[in-house]
Amino acid sequence: MREEINQLVTQAHEAYLSLRKTTFKQRAELMNLIADEIEALGEELIQTAHEETHLPVARLTGEKGRTIFQWRSYGAALAAGTVLDVRIDTALPERTPARPDIRKTYVGLGPVVVFGASNFPFAFSTAGGDTASAIAAGCSVIVKGHDAHKKTAQIMGDAITRAIQKAGYHAGTFAQVFPTNRQASQELVKHPLVKAVGFTGSYAGGKALFDIANQRPEPIPVFSEMGSVNPVFVLPEKMKNSPVEVAQQYIASLTLGVGQFCTNPGILVVPAGQQDFQKALVEAAAQVAPCKMLHEGIAASYVQNMNTLTAQENVEILHSASSTEKGVGAAALAFTTAETFLANQALQEEVFGPFGLVVAYSNPKQLEEIAQKIHGQLTCTVLGEEAEIAQYEDLILYITDKCGRILFNGFPTGVEVVSSMHHGGPFPACTDSRFTSVGPDSIRRFARPVSYQNVPDAYLPAELKNANPLGLYRLVDGKITQEAL
Amino acid sequence: MREEINQLVTQAHEAYLSLRKTTFKQRAELMNLIADEIEALGEELIQTAHEETHLPVARLTGEKGRTIFQWRSYGAALAAGTVLDVRIDTALPERTPARPDIRKTYVGLGPVVVFGASNFPFAFSTAGGDTASAIAAGCSVIVKGHDAHKKTAQIMGDAITRAIQKAGYHAGTFAQVFPTNRQASQELVKHPLVKAVGFTGSYAGGKALFDIANQRPEPIPVFSEMGSVNPVFVLPEKMKNSPVEVAQQYIASLTLGVGQFCTNPGILVVPAGQQDFQKALVEAAAQVAPCKMLHEGIAASYVQNMNTLTAQENVEILHSASSTEKGVGAAALAFTTAETFLANQALQEEVFGPFGLVVAYSNPKQLEEIAQKIHGQLTCTVLGEEAEIAQYEDLILYITDKCGRILFNGFPTGVEVVSSMHHGGPFPACTDSRFTSVGPDSIRRFARPVSYQNVPDAYLPAELKNANPLGLYRLVDGKITQEAL
Repeated sequence: MREEINQLVTQAHEAYLSLRKTTFKQRAELMNLIADEIEALGEELIQTAHEETHLPVARLTGEKGRTIFQWRSYGAALAAGTVLDVRIDTALPERTPARPDIRKTYVGLGPVVVFGASNFPFAFSTAGGDTASAIAAGCSVIVKGHDAHKKTAQIMGDAITRAIQKAGYHAGTFAQVFPTNRQASQELVKHPLVKAVGFTGSYAGGKALFDIANQRPEPIPVFSEMGSVNPVFVLPEKMKNSPVEVAQQYIASLTLGVGQFCTNPGILVVPAGQQDFQKALVEAAAQVAPCKMLHEGIAASYVQNMNTLTAQENVEILHSASSTEKGVGAAALAFTTAETFLANQALQEEVFGPFGLVVAYSNPKQLEEIAQKIHGQLTCTVLGEEAEIAQYEDLILYITDKCGRILFNGFPTGVEVVSSMHHGGPFPACTDSRFTSVGPDSIRRFARPVSYQNVPDAYLPAELKNANPLGLYRLVDGKITQEAL
Repeated sequence: MREEINQLVTQAHEAYLSLRKTTFKQRAELMNLIADEIEALGEELIQTAHEETHLPVARLTGEKGRTIFQWRSYGAALAAGTVLDVRIDTALPERTPARPDIRKTYVGLGPVVVFGASNFPFAFSTAGGDTASAIAAGCSVIVKGHDAHKKTAQIMGDAITRAIQKAGYHAGTFAQVFPTNRQASQELVKHPLVKAVGFTGSYAGGKALFDIANQRPEPIPVFSEMGSVNPVFVLPEKMKNSPVEVAQQYIASLTLGVGQFCTNPGILVVPAGQQDFQKALVEAAAQVAPCKMLHEGIAASYVQNMNTLTAQENVEILHSASSTEKGVGAAALAFTTAETFLANQALQEEVFGPFGLVVAYSNPKQLEEIAQKIHGQLTCTVLGEEAEIAQYEDLILYITDKCGRILFNGFPTGVEVVSSMHHGGPFPACTDSRFTSVGPDSIRRFARPVSYQNVPDAYLPAELKNANPLGLYRLVDGKITQEAL
């Protein structure tokens, strides 16, 4: 296996060097070709993924569209110059000492290893955002294919490979492997020519890779997105005015896709003593039909993690998962007080699936304390009447301190693929809060700046040339412009 | 000591929360006030630094100006919106499902601990780039003051404190400590409320902090800039046409500031068999008067590291450091072949001081091999005639793969403070090649993005409000504009 890995990575390194000769525009074109190949995949892709993941066909069809959009929109942002931002400071020959001409662009870090997630077999797996952003950055990619949807992964991998062949790129630009054991995956991360890792999945998996990568003789960056409980904070007026609406919308978000989203709102913080609300919440949960989860292992973990959490002291079960069918996940709810929640860190553990913990606060101070004590999150949500929000300035500050995205009067389960999206957050949501795994800015995880000083125009990369042949936005002597020099 | 550290960090955390309520513009104003206070420091600063570091008054005067410029120009870039780039994607209510309004800005990571360098007592120390960029990002700062220029550090620290007081900022916004042992410094890095570290200095020091920070329960980013040998590659035509000029300019760069720059060009790669050149090189080195180094420890290490390197097999001394005066560093040169260099990693070790290793190559293949085998560097330089450079496309590619800045026909010792500057590079030059420690982009080390979804205009941070009250450049629906929405 070690020799195979070495060959694979060596090929990826050669491909990386050859990618280094491509312009932003050429890579954007390659990304469009890859999107075309994915678009051309027919029923086989959807049916295979449906069989492997139990995700509904409509959801998978939507996710396919999202995946294609990721490739195209990341490519477009790269080609526009709004992600890997070019800076030019022209020479000042009359200054003492003379200032040379300096220009900065970005190059790919090198071969990137991608570990996809099981819950998004298209958008966060083989052909997902990590692969798209790494190729945009100018990196070759080795995907560790996900065992839970191996055939889907192969169909997607083949589509990428076809596009790479058609476009005449080095064969090592993309590869996918299915190592049979954890050690082989770790060997990949340890290989000296591997220069970065993208991971989406559990805390245990993501943190282990982060540690391995940092203990290499040459440490490399690992972006692990490791999940989150995405607390929702309900303010008193909102609760008073719309208890049933809040309950129903919360349950809809909590149970979407059998709760198998990294942005699933697993904790709901509400004012104490809301009987109408609790009743509506339980009623709404009871109406959600249990559904097959991604695989039996996830369904088993769901029940086990839920049992661990609800076995904590002073946790009351509001609505229990009633299905006993194997592999199926049913909505479940538990209740506790702010005092209990604040005293027991175990209540912050993620239960991956449609399980919600309702935490009741008795006063604004407790609400603030919860915001201060929660771990780092991908998202936090505030449900409040516009007028009352003004009284909670400090709460908003503490909440923002703990998350990558804050939402008002909405629910976090939708993650838009746009430049303004930050899908990341303070540890343990992610291993580096400065980067996102969704949106064009995700490209920045895999690129590094290089300055060119006093380099003749003929030898500059296209993005730095005087004529601005790629038509990029560039920061020239402090002003952003698309003009030539 | 532990209790003192805890108090210090707790204060810094409170100050950080209070900084979170400031706008980009307000922080830029604070930075200008700090620059004013430094500007107002008179002869005492320069004289104290001169006595403590032995750096010439003219050099220190220049460095003071550079330091002031850092504060002002980082503040200006922050205020312009060209560093912490704002993205807005407006709502698409008619889309199915409707797209919410999403806007992204940056917040500071939290309290930052800064470890300055001895070789730039102003620009890379207490009031240096790390402190300026962290405050720009919205972080409070605790500086571990440098023992080698303690009084200078105190004068600078007092200036920052005065500006903070005058502007009415929280007293914990800036603090400086002088721990008496390494353990206390490490305790600072381990404190849970500390969220990032900036370091400039030796590999051993920077890597140790990186490891400690990554082994915390909550890992935090450490940007350590750890030095470099900054190879200069001379192409054959250039050597043929101007051997004496190359020799003289190289020695001037090598011995500038007694070689005490992180961008000091410690390795010179030249075509074999250049007698005129070698003669000119030795002559130029002999003309450089030995000078006092920063402190006796550095001078002693200089001699020791040089001796270790020149004791390697097949290394010939071309010009030896002749001074025996304590604390003084004299220019020295050694010679080896490409074969020897390629076979012995010890020849890549940095010798901090005015020591140059000349490496002679016999053919272009060896030149490429050296470029492929050198470690990560802050800078690499190519000296070549414009016409011949075209034949070295692969060499340039390999070189760029190893450095943060590539220079043509210049020398790396000057580091301009501009947006286009990248002062960083692949490991072991730095712990994270994606960030710079010079130029406004250094602010990005200490800031993280936060997305605001569906947040009413009244509750958005100033930089995200419809009216664009700060007049920032913003990416709105894919176009960069300074207009209001």
